[in-house]
Amino acid sequence: MNTQSEMKPYVIGLDLGGTNSVFGIVDSRGEIKATTAIKTQGFDTVDDYVDASVNALQVIIEQVGGIDNIKAMGIGAPNGNYYNGTIEFAPNLSWGHDGVVPLAKMFSDRLGIPVALTNDANAAAIGEMTYGVARGMKNFIMITLGTGVGSGIVINGQLVYGCDGFAGELGHVIMRRTNGRPCGCGRFGCLETYCSATGVARSARELIDTTDTPSLLREMKAEDITSLDVSIAANKGDKLALEVYEFTGKMLGEACADFAAFSSPEAFIFFGGLTKAGDLIMDPIKKSYNEKVLKIFQGKAKFLISGLDGSAAAVLGASAIGWEI
Amino acid sequence: MNTQSEMKPYVIGLDLGGTNSVFGIVDSRGEIKATTAIKTQGFDTVDDYVDASVNALQVIIEQVGGIDNIKAMGIGAPNGNYYNGTIEFAPNLSWGHDGVVPLAKMFSDRLGIPVALTNDANAAAIGEMTYGVARGMKNFIMITLGTGVGSGIVINGQLVYGCDGFAGELGHVIMRRTNGRPCGCGRFGCLETYCSATGVARSARELIDTTDTPSLLREMKAEDITSLDVSIAANKGDKLALEVYEFTGKMLGEACADFAAFSSPEAFIFFGGLTKAGDLIMDPIKKSYNEKVLKIFQGKAKFLISGLDGSAAAVLGASAIGWEI
Repeated sequence: MNTQSEMKPYVIGLDLGGTNSVFGIVDSRGEIKATTAIKTQGFDTVDDYVDASVNALQVIIEQVGGIDNIKAMGIGAPNGNYYNGTIEFAPNLSWGHDGVVPLAKMFSDRLGIPVALTNDANAAAIGEMTYGVARGMKNFIMITLGTGVGSGIVINGQLVYGCDGFAGELGHVIMRRTNGRPCGCGRFGCLETYCSATGVARSARELIDTTDTPSLLREMKAEDITSLDVSIAANKGDKLALEVYEFTGKMLGEACADFAAFSSPEAFIFFGGLTKAGDLIMDPIKKSYNEKVLKIFQGKAKFLISGLDGSAAAVLGASAIGWEI
Repeated sequence: MNTQSEMKPYVIGLDLGGTNSVFGIVDSRGEIKATTAIKTQGFDTVDDYVDASVNALQVIIEQVGGIDNIKAMGIGAPNGNYYNGTIEFAPNLSWGHDGVVPLAKMFSDRLGIPVALTNDANAAAIGEMTYGVARGMKNFIMITLGTGVGSGIVINGQLVYGCDGFAGELGHVIMRRTNGRPCGCGRFGCLETYCSATGVARSARELIDTTDTPSLLREMKAEDITSLDVSIAANKGDKLALEVYEFTGKMLGEACADFAAFSSPEAFIFFGGLTKAGDLIMDPIKKSYNEKVLKIFQGKAKFLISGLDGSAAAVLGASAIGWEI
C-alpha cells in the first residue's frame, strides 16, 4: 500500500447496469463499507443522470468521513471504453445510445477525484479474478446475464481490451443469421436477444403463443411476464418455463462452443439473475456445449456460477480499477 | 544472439499444411538458406510421413553443412499443441485425424535436435509479426485460407494459446446452424466448409447446379473444379466465379464481425491461395464486415493481405519457435 492510499483509505465503485446503478465505497481489502443505488434509466440527459448519482453518493461519502477519504472512483459500464473513460453508443442506455459520453471526466469534475471506467462485464471479471471463483485462473470468460448479455475475457491473466478498449462484446455475436430477433444494437439475432433477462421473458411469450404446453405463466398477461416469473415457475416444475431454460441454455452452450474455438478458456463463469436458476440453466449449457464444441475441447472447460453475491462482483471490480489510477 | 545459436547458425522450419509440407532452413536474420517439400497426405501412418520428411530434410541439411549446424526445429501444424508438441485429432490429416500424434518428439528422436510445434496458423501469425505487415501490431487476427481455414490470434502482443494450447480454431466457428455443410471435424456449418479452397470449389459447383448464371466453369466436369479454376475464371470477369467470391467474402466479413466482438483487433490479415484474388475477395469482406459489425467497431479494423510470399510466412514463423527452445 502506498502513502497516498494509506492517507485516502477508500475508493468508490459504480456498477452501471442497464436497470440499476449500484455504488459502493470499498476499502483496500475489498470490504464494501457503504452502498447506495439509483435507477439507470428515466433520465433525459447524461447530466441529469450524473446529478442524481452525485446526490446519492454524497450521503454515503459522508458516512465514511467525506470526500477527503476517497482516493478515486472506478466505473463498470456497458460499452465502457477503458482507454478514454467514455461510454460509446451503449444500446441499452436511454441517455447513452447515440454518441460518446465522457462519463469518467464528468464524475471527476463533479467529485474532484480521479475516475476510471471500463466495460461493466470487464469489471465483473476483475472482481471475480480478485475475490471469486476465478482466483488463480489465467484464461477464462465471464458472461454476465442481466438486462443485456455482457462479457469479460481474460487471456494470459490479462483483461482483453482490444485495439480500442471495446473488446469483449460477446452478447453481440450473431446466433441466428436468418429471422433473428431485433437487438437494441440495431442488428438482428444477437446472443443478447435470446439469453438476457428480456430475452428469456420473450422466449416464454413465444412458447405461450406457439405451443400448447400447459403453464402457470399463461395465467399472466403476456406483456407482464419477466425472467423472474419464468424462474419462479421453473422452480415449481412448470413445463413451459423449463423449456425456456432448455432453449436458453442450449443457445448459451452453442455460443460458448464458438468462444472456445477463439480462446480455449479454462472456465466459463456466469453472473447475473439468470444464474439463480442453478442447474436448471447450467445443465443445458454444459450439455449443449459438449455436444456442439470441437472434439479437441470436449469435456475440458469448467462451467461455474460467480462466487460473488449479487452486484458485489461488479462493484468490487469497478472499485479495483480505482486503486490502479 | 547467445553463444549456442552462434555456434549453430540455423533452425529448421516446417509448414505442415493439409496438402504440402514445406521445410526451410533459416538463419537468425530470417533468411531461408535451403528449402524442400513433400506431400502431406498419402501416408498410411505417421511413421511413414516422418520417414519421408527426414529423407527430404537430409538433402537440405547437407547443403548447409550438416546437422551440427542446426540448433532446433519448429513445426507449424494443424491442431498443433504448443504445450505438448503434439498434433491432436487433426481432421484434415489422413494419419492424424484419429488421435494424439507426438510429432515434435518423433522428429526430435530422428534428428537429434530439440523440436517445438504450434498451430500452423499461429506460426504464420508469428512470421507476420516478425517479418510482415503485422510488425508493431499488438492486436491482430491472422486468417489462413488454405485446404482448411486456420487462425492465429494475437492479443496484447502475445499469441493466444488458451488453457490447453489449442486456442485460435476460428475455421470451426459455426456460420450456419441449420443446413450447414458437413465439415472434416464431424460437425456442420463451420466457416471452413465455406471459405477454404475446397469450400470455394464447392460453392462454385452449388451455383452451377442451382442457377442459370453463365460461366466458363460449366465447360468443366463439376468434380474437377478447384478454387484455382474459380480464381482464373473470376479474373476473366466470369459472372458465376465473381458470385462465388462475393458469397465467400460476405461470409468471411460476417465471421470477422463476430471476431471483433471478441478481441477488437487492429487488423485482420489474410494469408493463403484465396488472397491471390486480391480486391475480388477483399472488397466483399470489407463491405460485409462494415455492414454487419457492431456500430462501435465500424470502419476501425484494417483488412490486409499477408506481406510474406507463399508459404514463407508459415516456414519463417515455424522456424522462429526453434530459436526460442
